[in-house]
Amino acid sequence: MNTTTESAVTEAELAAGRRAYELDREHVFHSWSAQKQIKPMTVIRAEGSHVWDGEGRKLLDFSSQLVNTNIGHQHPKVVAAIQEQAGKLCTIAPQYVNDARSEAARLVSELTPGNLDTVFFTNGGADAIEHAVRMARLHTGRYKVLSAYRSYHGGTALAVNVTGDPRRIPNDYGTAGTVHFHAPFLYRSQFHATTEQEECRRALDHLESIIQLEGPSAFAAVVLESIPGTAGIMVPPPGYLAGVRELTRRYGIMFIADEVMAGFGRSGKWFAVEHGGDVVPDLLTFAKGVNSGYVPLGGVAISDEIAATFADTAYPGGLTYSGHPLACAAAVATIGAMREEGMVENAARLGDAVFGPGLAEIAARHQSVGEVRGTGAFWAIELVKNRQTREPLAPYGGSSPEMNTLIAACKDRGLLPFANFNRLHVVPPLNVTGEEARTGLDIIDDVLGIADTFVTG
Amino acid sequence: MNTTTESAVTEAELAAGRRAYELDREHVFHSWSAQKQIKPMTVIRAEGSHVWDGEGRKLLDFSSQLVNTNIGHQHPKVVAAIQEQAGKLCTIAPQYVNDARSEAARLVSELTPGNLDTVFFTNGGADAIEHAVRMARLHTGRYKVLSAYRSYHGGTALAVNVTGDPRRIPNDYGTAGTVHFHAPFLYRSQFHATTEQEECRRALDHLESIIQLEGPSAFAAVVLESIPGTAGIMVPPPGYLAGVRELTRRYGIMFIADEVMAGFGRSGKWFAVEHGGDVVPDLLTFAKGVNSGYVPLGGVAISDEIAATFADTAYPGGLTYSGHPLACAAAVATIGAMREEGMVENAARLGDAVFGPGLAEIAARHQSVGEVRGTGAFWAIELVKNRQTREPLAPYGGSSPEMNTLIAACKDRGLLPFANFNRLHVVPPLNVTGEEARTGLDIIDDVLGIADTFVTG
Ligand SMILES: Cc1ncc(COP(=O)(O)O)c(C=O)c1O
Ligand SMILES: Cc1ncc(COP(=O)(O)O)c(C=O)c1O
Repeated sequence: MNTTTESAVTEAELAAGRRAYELDREHVFHSWSAQKQIKPMTVIRAEGSHVWDGEGRKLLDFSSQLVNTNIGHQHPKVVAAIQEQAGKLCTIAPQYVNDARSEAARLVSELTPGNLDTVFFTNGGADAIEHAVRMARLHTGRYKVLSAYRSYHGGTALAVNVTGDPRRIPNDYGTAGTVHFHAPFLYRSQFHATTEQEECRRALDHLESIIQLEGPSAFAAVVLESIPGTAGIMVPPPGYLAGVRELTRRYGIMFIADEVMAGFGRSGKWFAVEHGGDVVPDLLTFAKGVNSGYVPLGGVAISDEIAATFADTAYPGGLTYSGHPLACAAAVATIGAMREEGMVENAARLGDAVFGPGLAEIAARHQSVGEVRGTGAFWAIELVKNRQTREPLAPYGGSSPEMNTLIAACKDRGLLPFANFNRLHVVPPLNVTGEEARTGLDIIDDVLGIADTFVTG
Repeated sequence: MNTTTESAVTEAELAAGRRAYELDREHVFHSWSAQKQIKPMTVIRAEGSHVWDGEGRKLLDFSSQLVNTNIGHQHPKVVAAIQEQAGKLCTIAPQYVNDARSEAARLVSELTPGNLDTVFFTNGGADAIEHAVRMARLHTGRYKVLSAYRSYHGGTALAVNVTGDPRRIPNDYGTAGTVHFHAPFLYRSQFHATTEQEECRRALDHLESIIQLEGPSAFAAVVLESIPGTAGIMVPPPGYLAGVRELTRRYGIMFIADEVMAGFGRSGKWFAVEHGGDVVPDLLTFAKGVNSGYVPLGGVAISDEIAATFADTAYPGGLTYSGHPLACAAAVATIGAMREEGMVENAARLGDAVFGPGLAEIAARHQSVGEVRGTGAFWAIELVKNRQTREPLAPYGGSSPEMNTLIAACKDRGLLPFANFNRLHVVPPLNVTGEEARTGLDIIDDVLGIADTFVTG
């Protein structure tokens, strides 16, 4: 969205930002960080596709924060809906019926594929995963869970143990019952494949082999990001998701599609699983895009079969804010605005017309780019020191001075990037304009000139 | 708060309620329930100490929902603050500095006892517990966790396994590392004690004995509700919390005080741990009352020693909505309103002047009352079939036709109660008026006339 009416940053805003910084350093404990080694950026304002830092600099938000503000910042329709619901009814306990919650559940049921007709609301993505796994365990009477390496499913104990990225490691006390497999990733193929088709076939054989070796009736669920997000936006090859669906059905395993990041339009479709054709998972977890994170909300869309398991037997799980009215009203308004303004279509179009071709050109121009991949408004640029060896510009699980230089260079040029290990992700709001999209790519193009100087081979 | 200006319920509100009910039954999956066996009550409006059901009946809310709306419904100052923050900045990622988050962290640090000077924000109570346990594990280098039977700590996998109420049972797959002990509860003493003092001493000996038998260096943390809430509002005897503090210090165990329900004024002090004198836990978990649940929020207040562990080593945990600006702005406004309007003092006064004496009279009048206990705006009425045998009116972990009759009778008389097993809890907003408090007690008095007819001995 263009913010043509914006006012100049005031001294009062800047002063509030300075005070916020001081208090933050004294009293706020930050996620995933060594508290004394960070110098967090202050955000004093956000609007549309932009945020303003503590010095009043305007930055184009190519991160959507943690890939959640799919409608951009401060969308007026959603802000108004939150204000209206706040004036009407902020909260009510989960055991009562509430109109905002009912309508949000109806909309999510309508948007999700197949017979995912019932919705259990949570506060975010991690607890959505926790509850989806629990439902699968109780439905199947089995315990073990299969999930992919190079994945992220959340920060609570179970969710982080299902996770397959380095954040699991310091939280893993030898947790029983979580088994990890390799999902397809042709650029760094585990299976020595040379084509997408070969990678797909071999990844499915690998998954089936693990199911066989661990015990064909061992697993309650496969948890899989429809498109792995933070781990690198590896769009699965055609046939993979359908293959997982077929395998899980054959072995009586519940297929949990984690759409916390990939869902709600990010991939250019409402849910990324739709790229796999007619694939309907048994459980679908969501958060982030459901209301762009304007109010904390997540949830699980549940198949009729699994819901039936809890028709006459109590589901043993819950939380105080399940189906929170304010959060649900924000979801209703967000989905409405996304539909009215064609945001999912816009993401698809930008992917095809701007990001796809633009990033292909960037890849062709820069030796430091190993691969670009993605769909919709969901793209990764994999940076390497050497195109032949594919040695990454930062080690798996870490950062590097080179990557830090690039991130700083993006900010200097007015772009807020999303970076992870050796990758820059291009994940702006879905309603970014073509012009903003091109501006962002131009900055990245410029910054990758610096990356090229790090190339050694 | 009195709602003198309220308007009549409209046909439009009722129609919206009917539609919400239909959609709920089709699409909403409810916490802790057999989905087809519930007939959830609809709430079409809420204001101050009252809610309106689907038929437009006005009910006095003696539950504070799930004991979270400590400031009552739709407090105008907090509603206005949410609306203002929504117009300014709904959300921003946890890694940035934000003024609402900084100020909320400052206020929580200021209100919590001792050197709990840093705050990690979560979405609710369960993830607060998850992260507190993780901090304790990493700080101590130990794994096992001690927690009390008759407790509730949340619905995610780790939180529910630390929990000591029946909700743990269907979620317990033989989880390693959680050990349960008996906290003091004189009315159903595990230790055959006859005085509070004896119960206290014996409960502390019991705890120390378990620490010794499991291994004096086995435990990372003791997780303990400062006043166990849902499990029955068992105010610990004088000296117990200080004794736990002393024991945990002696054995190098972190003391996690769970103040999710008891905190933020519920007990007549800002935090229930203050009833124990100068007791400062190592970690204090909160949620609910921090902003009355108007926007989902929870968190952990962290001692300086534990924060120091993560000064130069990354804390391996996080969540997308940590320190959510809208939720934090609601907390700032809630704490402000509670201070300005003396709500904590009001809860203390009502406890001393109305609930304490009023419930004592009720206990004296009704054979069905085994015990009343509590403090501030936090009281339990323990109902029995027989005062001698203390046989409860519903089995531990279950309901009974008798209890269902009483709950329905409360609603028929215009009171929304909080019930658990064989108990009715008196847990209204902290700013309930003396008149409302007495009205509620009168209804309970009346309803207990029915309970008396169930008495068998
Ligand atoms: C795919 C996926 N699942 C789950 C989560 C966890 O969500 P939350 O941070 O809201 O707990 C994330 C967060 O980034 C995610 O990307
Ligand atoms: C003492 C206590 N701890 C933790 C929780 C869990 O909080 P939440 O439901 O927000 O996850 C509760 C909820 O009732 C509670 O009473």
